[in-house]
Amino acid sequence: MTPRERVSAFLETPTVRNAIIGVILFNAVILGLETSQVVMARAGGLLHLLDTLCLTVFVAEIAAKLYARRLGFFRSGWNLFDFVIVAVAMAPAAQGFAVLRVLRILRVLRVISVTPRLRRVVEGFISALPGMGSVFLLMGIIFYAASVMATKLFGASFPEWFGTLGRSGYSLFQVMTLESWSMGIVRPVMEVYPLAWAFFVPFILMTTFAVMNLVVGLIVNSMQEAHGEEEHAMTDAYRDEVLTRLAAIEAKLDSSRMDRTG
Amino acid sequence: MTPRERVSAFLETPTVRNAIIGVILFNAVILGLETSQVVMARAGGLLHLLDTLCLTVFVAEIAAKLYARRLGFFRSGWNLFDFVIVAVAMAPAAQGFAVLRVLRILRVLRVISVTPRLRRVVEGFISALPGMGSVFLLMGIIFYAASVMATKLFGASFPEWFGTLGRSGYSLFQVMTLESWSMGIVRPVMEVYPLAWAFFVPFILMTTFAVMNLVVGLIVNSMQEAHGEEEHAMTDAYRDEVLTRLAAIEAKLDSSRMDRTG
Amino acid sequence: MTPRERVSAFLETPTVRNAIIGVILFNAVILGLETSQVVMARAGGLLHLLDTLCLTVFVAEIAAKLYARRLGFFRSGWNLFDFVIVAVAMAPAAQGFAVLRVLRILRVLRVISVTPRLRRVVEGFISALPGMGSVFLLMGIIFYAASVMATKLFGASFPEWFGTLGRSGYSLFQVMTLESWSMGIVRPVMEVYPLAWAFFVPFILMTTFAVMNLVVGLIVNSMQEAHGEEEHAMTDAYRDEVLTRLAAIEAKLDSSRMDRTG
Amino acid sequence: MTPRERVSAFLETPTVRNAIIGVILFNAVILGLETSQVVMARAGGLLHLLDTLCLTVFVAEIAAKLYARRLGFFRSGWNLFDFVIVAVAMAPAAQGFAVLRVLRILRVLRVISVTPRLRRVVEGFISALPGMGSVFLLMGIIFYAASVMATKLFGASFPEWFGTLGRSGYSLFQVMTLESWSMGIVRPVMEVYPLAWAFFVPFILMTTFAVMNLVVGLIVNSMQEAHGEEEHAMTDAYRDEVLTRLAAIEAKLDSSRMDRTG
Repeated sequence: MTPRERVSAFLETPTVRNAIIGVILFNAVILGLETSQVVMARAGGLLHLLDTLCLTVFVAEIAAKLYARRLGFFRSGWNLFDFVIVAVAMAPAAQGFAVLRVLRILRVLRVISVTPRLRRVVEGFISALPGMGSVFLLMGIIFYAASVMATKLFGASFPEWFGTLGRSGYSLFQVMTLESWSMGIVRPVMEVYPLAWAFFVPFILMTTFAVMNLVVGLIVNSMQEAHGEEEHAMTDAYRDEVLTRLAAIEAKLDSSRMDRTG
Repeated sequence: MTPRERVSAFLETPTVRNAIIGVILFNAVILGLETSQVVMARAGGLLHLLDTLCLTVFVAEIAAKLYARRLGFFRSGWNLFDFVIVAVAMAPAAQGFAVLRVLRILRVLRVISVTPRLRRVVEGFISALPGMGSVFLLMGIIFYAASVMATKLFGASFPEWFGTLGRSGYSLFQVMTLESWSMGIVRPVMEVYPLAWAFFVPFILMTTFAVMNLVVGLIVNSMQEAHGEEEHAMTDAYRDEVLTRLAAIEAKLDSSRMDRTG
Repeated sequence: MTPRERVSAFLETPTVRNAIIGVILFNAVILGLETSQVVMARAGGLLHLLDTLCLTVFVAEIAAKLYARRLGFFRSGWNLFDFVIVAVAMAPAAQGFAVLRVLRILRVLRVISVTPRLRRVVEGFISALPGMGSVFLLMGIIFYAASVMATKLFGASFPEWFGTLGRSGYSLFQVMTLESWSMGIVRPVMEVYPLAWAFFVPFILMTTFAVMNLVVGLIVNSMQEAHGEEEHAMTDAYRDEVLTRLAAIEAKLDSSRMDRTG
Repeated sequence: MTPRERVSAFLETPTVRNAIIGVILFNAVILGLETSQVVMARAGGLLHLLDTLCLTVFVAEIAAKLYARRLGFFRSGWNLFDFVIVAVAMAPAAQGFAVLRVLRILRVLRVISVTPRLRRVVEGFISALPGMGSVFLLMGIIFYAASVMATKLFGASFPEWFGTLGRSGYSLFQVMTLESWSMGIVRPVMEVYPLAWAFFVPFILMTTFAVMNLVVGLIVNSMQEAHGEEEHAMTDAYRDEVLTRLAAIEAKLDSSRMDRTG
């Protein structure tokens, strides 16, 4: 056993795995406490120290994994995920980027990569995405066309909502989720352009229909997967056996006939 | 028949069961009437008396059940449910806790534990929960991480919505239900932090996708259960019979051949 | 052929049926035009006349049906539906009840009872209801209990929303549909009762979960119906034939053996 | 190979097809840039020129297709779709109709007609519509009747929302999507007509139930299609083979018996 293999085996013992989960959850609690000004005023220094400690553990773990698997480390999407999350947490050490500091909480997501059950759920989600690709592309086209139209039609009078392509896209996303689409957006727009409903109502119908189709596709897919595997295997095995036996019976009948006629 | 068995048998007669349902519904009507100030002004004393009477019946019923089944009583989740609901109704007798008095209406829920059909529906709901556990856990993680981020990013400017972890969690729950997410929350936030949409839109997409997956999982599960049992039993029985018969035919062919060649 | 049978046959000729549909649609247009004040000012008298004419046709049709089928007329739910709708339209002739006059438009719904395809859709809807009965009952219980609690807890401070059982029920229905539940209702309530979320969030989770279960039940049901009939019939026929043939082969083998050994 | 065939073959080479996709996307970017006033101020002339260039390519392509397939061109719905979209883009060349100019962005939708995968998705959507026809018709009837009733009942007091048939239809569509139905519409109406909920709540229940049925129908349909084809073919082939073989075995048994007895 090379040192590399020994490190690799050590990292996969349940004790180490559970310890890492423990550190992640402990880190999550600390980052949660950091949101409280009262706690920060009293024990801010301690929290920062503990946070740095947790980070050190994560860095050490990833360094060990890198040592053990070298570039093979990056072949797993989950390893890459861990690497990016920990790397992001290092950046703010520099200073200034307050937003990057906030991203430290994403480390909680490492619970997913460490827990096989959660990993499988997320992998299930991701594996469902490609099947929805065409519908997403279609929705993207509809959104782009609708954004251009909304910007040109309503941008002048409602710069806040439809002033630029980006704003139109955001407003149309809001309309698609049906949030305040009428009282908040379309009724005010209709006061200036009375025919605005002829743009928004078909947009709502089309996008909700597309979303509905996404859900239907997801259901049909999951159903087939769930239904398919086990049962099909059983049915196929049974059918093969029936056909084999029928062939055997026929062969025996043929040979018994030959016996007699021969 | 011991006295215990006689009490147990008595409690399970349809007459007693229907009487209990009647008392529950009667109690529900009384508690409903207590919400009306007019009725309370005229007949408050009578209502309180009748309510106490109903409670006495429930206490007597539970005492009888406890006597009949002793600690075995607590083995059934529904008995425990009844016990807690009736116990809660006793507490306010003490005084002061107005909220606890309000919980008396939960006694209506005893209709569920008494009616087999409703029991089955609720048991169906509860049996669906464990299968959704992983997705719930995942949503919990996403909510926790998003709450910490929202508190740190927007807490200073919008203390009402994102001032503490709890407030952020509540506001994000509201955003997930799509209620006033844009006009009520995100647009005001974007006036201070123009890039806030880059936090909220992905949050909405992720959580609604997760909820969608919950629904899909529920559908696939129910379908398999409904589909599976009966039909599988029939198919398996049929297949076994076909294979047995084929084997019998082969055996007969073999023996008839042996007869001739023997 | 008795006069009764002749009337019955006449009513079922396609010409009569189509004429009735025509009158219904014509009546719908007239009632639609009556909503326009401009049209009413110019041709109000004519419209009233035409409406009365349509009503006369409907009354004549129903009278003819009653004559042809006598009390058997009321055995069909759709006939009863037609009868009530036309009867409602007669009432306002008395005068005064403006609301009853409005109900005349319900005559459009007669298109459903006359068109077999639409009838089947509505019958499909109605046949789905009993399967959802238990869940509806459960939701009714939850709504009643929650209404009583909300009235007692929040009625004093928010009489507009939770002042009486009816108002609470309506407000909770609004909350269940997720309309303005947070910004419109729960946030204002939380300003007085900071723990109000502990009542509303579980209420939302429970009711949406129950609605979700309704949808899932509906899907599973439709799927089984659609899947079941045709395919099952084919599979059963096939299986019967296989078993019959296998039995025949065995019988032949047995008899041929007897021939030889006999 | 006639010139017509040569043109037709040329139009279907991957190079031409990809070039057309490229022009469509390039045109989409240009139309997107036209929404920016900064860009228009600097390079408006260039953008118009490039747009005209793209249009020329589309016109040339359609002219070539028309030449190649003559009137057969119009037999394909997608060709008609392309034709109308490009024709619409020619109209504003006239001048004045600002709205028609906006429709130029619909050219992006040509990506759909050119990409087989997207075509199939849209064809799937469209093929799902006829099966939903009856429910749509039913919803149309409900909407018409409800609009007439709402106009007559609430039109006088709320001309903005229910003043005309069209406004009522729009407001009821908003109510059906559950957007601000209570806080925005029904609560204000209830202040004048306290029983308005008796109109709106059943309307919401009926229309959401109908929409739910649409979704359920869509799911059942997709499921059957997905499930059906492949598996049925396999099952049918298997069953035919089993029955053929059983018949053959019986025939052999019969003939072997005849041999002996004959």
